[in-house]
Formats: sequence, C-alpha cells, structure tokens
Amino acid sequence: MAERHRLSPSRLVGILGGMGPAATVDFYAKLVRHTPAEQDQDHLRVVIWGDPSVPNRQEALLAGGTDPTPWLEEGVRRLIDAGAEIVVVPCNTVHAHVRPVMAGQPVEFIDIIDTTVEAVRRRGLHRVGLLATDGALASGIFQRGLDAAGVEWVLPSPERQASLMRLVHAVKTGRVDTATLTAMADLLAEIDSRGASTAVAGCTEISTLLERPPGGADVVDPALELALRTVERARHT
Amino acid sequence: MAERHRLSPSRLVGILGGMGPAATVDFYAKLVRHTPAEQDQDHLRVVIWGDPSVPNRQEALLAGGTDPTPWLEEGVRRLIDAGAEIVVVPCNTVHAHVRPVMAGQPVEFIDIIDTTVEAVRRRGLHRVGLLATDGALASGIFQRGLDAAGVEWVLPSPERQASLMRLVHAVKTGRVDTATLTAMADLLAEIDSRGASTAVAGCTEISTLLERPPGGADVVDPALELALRTVERARHT
Repeated sequence: MAERHRLSPSRLVGILGGMGPAATVDFYAKLVRHTPAEQDQDHLRVVIWGDPSVPNRQEALLAGGTDPTPWLEEGVRRLIDAGAEIVVVPCNTVHAHVRPVMAGQPVEFIDIIDTTVEAVRRRGLHRVGLLATDGALASGIFQRGLDAAGVEWVLPSPERQASLMRLVHAVKTGRVDTATLTAMADLLAEIDSRGASTAVAGCTEISTLLERPPGGADVVDPALELALRTVERARHT
Repeated sequence: MAERHRLSPSRLVGILGGMGPAATVDFYAKLVRHTPAEQDQDHLRVVIWGDPSVPNRQEALLAGGTDPTPWLEEGVRRLIDAGAEIVVVPCNTVHAHVRPVMAGQPVEFIDIIDTTVEAVRRRGLHRVGLLATDGALASGIFQRGLDAAGVEWVLPSPERQASLMRLVHAVKTGRVDTATLTAMADLLAEIDSRGASTAVAGCTEISTLLERPPGGADVVDPALELALRTVERARHT
C-alpha cells in the first residue's frame, strides 16, 4: 500500500467538513474544478470527515455553548488515521477552535484565515469589507489577521449583519432562493457604500452564494483561495 | 466516543468516491440537498474516501487493463476503519468490480444499480433508454438488472454512444460547455426517437449534466436515487 501511494502524484488531502455540509460540498467542488486534470487519475486524493453534529460554533463563541473542540479533535484524528498528510477546514468561524487543535499535529495545516489574508495582500488591497458570522467577529480571528497585514476592514451595519446571519441560515437549511441572492447583493452594495469596494466573504456559507456573483461585486472568496492553495500544496511533495 | 455517537441521529455513511471526482461532488451535493434539515446538526455524518487514482475502469472492463479491485478493497477498508456503517459508491461502472468487494463486509451496502432498477419499477416503466459507459455495458450489470425486473432497454446508436463517452470525458476533465449540454440533449432525443421516453442516466458523470435537464426529457438519475435511499437508510437505526 505504501508502495502504491508513493507512485501517487499528490499528498492525501484531509478535509474536516460538515460545518456546514453545503459549504463542504462547495469547497470540494472548487477543489475539483481548480485541479488541472486530463483524467480521473490526475485529481487529488482526498478524505473527507463530514460531521455536522459538531456543536453550534455561534453558541460556543457567543453564549457559552458546548465547546466543539472534542468533536474537532476526533475528526482530525480520523483524518490522520486515514492517512491525511494535509488538513484543511472549509469553515472560517471554526478556525477559532480548530487552530489550537491543529497545533503540534504531525501534518500540514492550511489555515483558511491566513490564506485569505495572504490573498488580500497579493491583490494589493488596503481596505476590505468583512462579511463574517457574529461568532467569527466575536473571536476577532479575521480582524487580527487583517490588522497584522495592515489592511483596514469595514463591517456591515447591525441591520445588514443580521441579514448576513439569515443568509447563512438559509444556506444551512437549503432554502436559497431569489430573495437570498437579492439580500446578498444588498449586503455587498452596503459594504461598497461604506468605502470597501472589495469584500471578504469570510463565511463558507456565503461562499456558496458566489457562483452567480451579484452585479460586478469584487469578492475575495476564502473557500476558493483555500482550494487553490490546497491544490498547490498537495502537489508539493 | 461511542457514547457520543449513540446520540447521533444517523448512521455514519461511507462514500467510496473519486470515480470521478466531479461525480462524487454531485452525489454529495444531492445527499445534502435531499436531507431534511433545520440546522447543521440534522444532516448526515459522512466519511468520503475520494481516490481518483483507482485504475481506469473502462480499460479494466474492455481491454484487460489493471484490475481496480485492490484500490477498491483499500478504500472500503479505510471507510470501515473510519466507522462507516453504510457504504455507497457513486459510480455505476465500478459496481461490476465493487460488488464482489462488498460481499461479506460487515456493513450495509446500497447498490446503485439495484436502487436504480427499483426506481424504474416504482415508476411503472416497461421500457427505458440506457445511457451507460462502454465498460458498464460490456459488464452487462444494468442490462441484467433491468431484464430481471422485466424492463426493456434501448441503447443509443454507436455514433451517439461515442458521443456519450465524450460527454463523460468532458465532465472528468472539467470541460463542460454549451456544446456538451447540446450533445446531451441530442442523446436524449435519439433515445426518445428509439422508443424510450425515459432514460436511465447510468453513469454518474452523466448525472452531473442533469442540473439543467434538456427540454422536458424524463430521466431516472441513479445518483439522485442513491442519495434518496441513503438518506432513508441512514436514518433507519
């Protein structure tokens, strides 16, 4: 088996998913779409642990809810036991909890927040809109990364932030319709009117709504950036 | 850990994927979309072993190419080691090789061919078009299932069958465009003209092209049927 895997052109990518499931599907789709391939065999080998039963991260970050750490530890262990050599987690919010879990693990971890901040720097942006969940904002994970990179960030108004949380819920419950896409466009328009012409879609549920990006809005998509970086690192043996 | 899992509302679903990757994404998307859920925690727990390095099944079935069985055995073992209680394989063609691998395994196996034939029966169809790869047709796996159910089957002309194989390749290499969708519509129109108003899309790459089903064509989608059956069985604890 080891012999066979040595012949493989890529390292095994472990995806800790299920947070939420639609966001994991979206990330996996982007990973496949952005892997140059002439046949199945050119694609990356992946193992996905998709456990949607991880306790609610908003409640954990905002209201003293159940700590999701044991579920994350278990998922990472299963991925590593299955042979994962790289671990990625297509959920921005959970990175507040997943970073300590990944510290010291014997595999490479590609951090979605760091990858996104790096993409913002590469584009030469000095000011971005920050679309993230209440929990992610409370953890300060994106703000600290952008601050360290010298990038200003602008948040939606409280009203639009509440709308953002409803969008996330619509994706998680499979209830995306025209009204959802209109609300998404309004959110981006507000961010633009607050002085940020580019928004960071810092929630992987929001990422799923960017297939048909509303009217010319410029968006940095962490799910896409993580996929691109994963393809690059998986080939780097 | 066992304690925690006993609380979970679903059995762990193992998906043997990567054949091809886009088809696995499509199946996972259908599984998520068709799971009734009010929150992440209502979704199914899944583990996906996505190994696109499994040797080409067309070559194995048609030209004495490398037997994919050892790769399938390894994938199934990894899924079971990870705790899978149900195994599904969102690839029709590989079922010729995967059935013997699953025989005697200590987990439930939901066979995509059997599930599809059952869906054809439930719809009361007596005659269907059969869209499957050259390899799947050579193995006779679908024909035997339909014969046993007393359902007649109609194949595309050799010319359209060659077109079908090109469609499968286009999906596997991420090169789906308007011409691909036109060719798909032509294929369904030919099947209809050959006396089958409903087609079985017996290849999961073909399934990925059915998001926008061409002009009113009636299709049985094995990927969708497998997803629906998986949701049902995963809740059956």
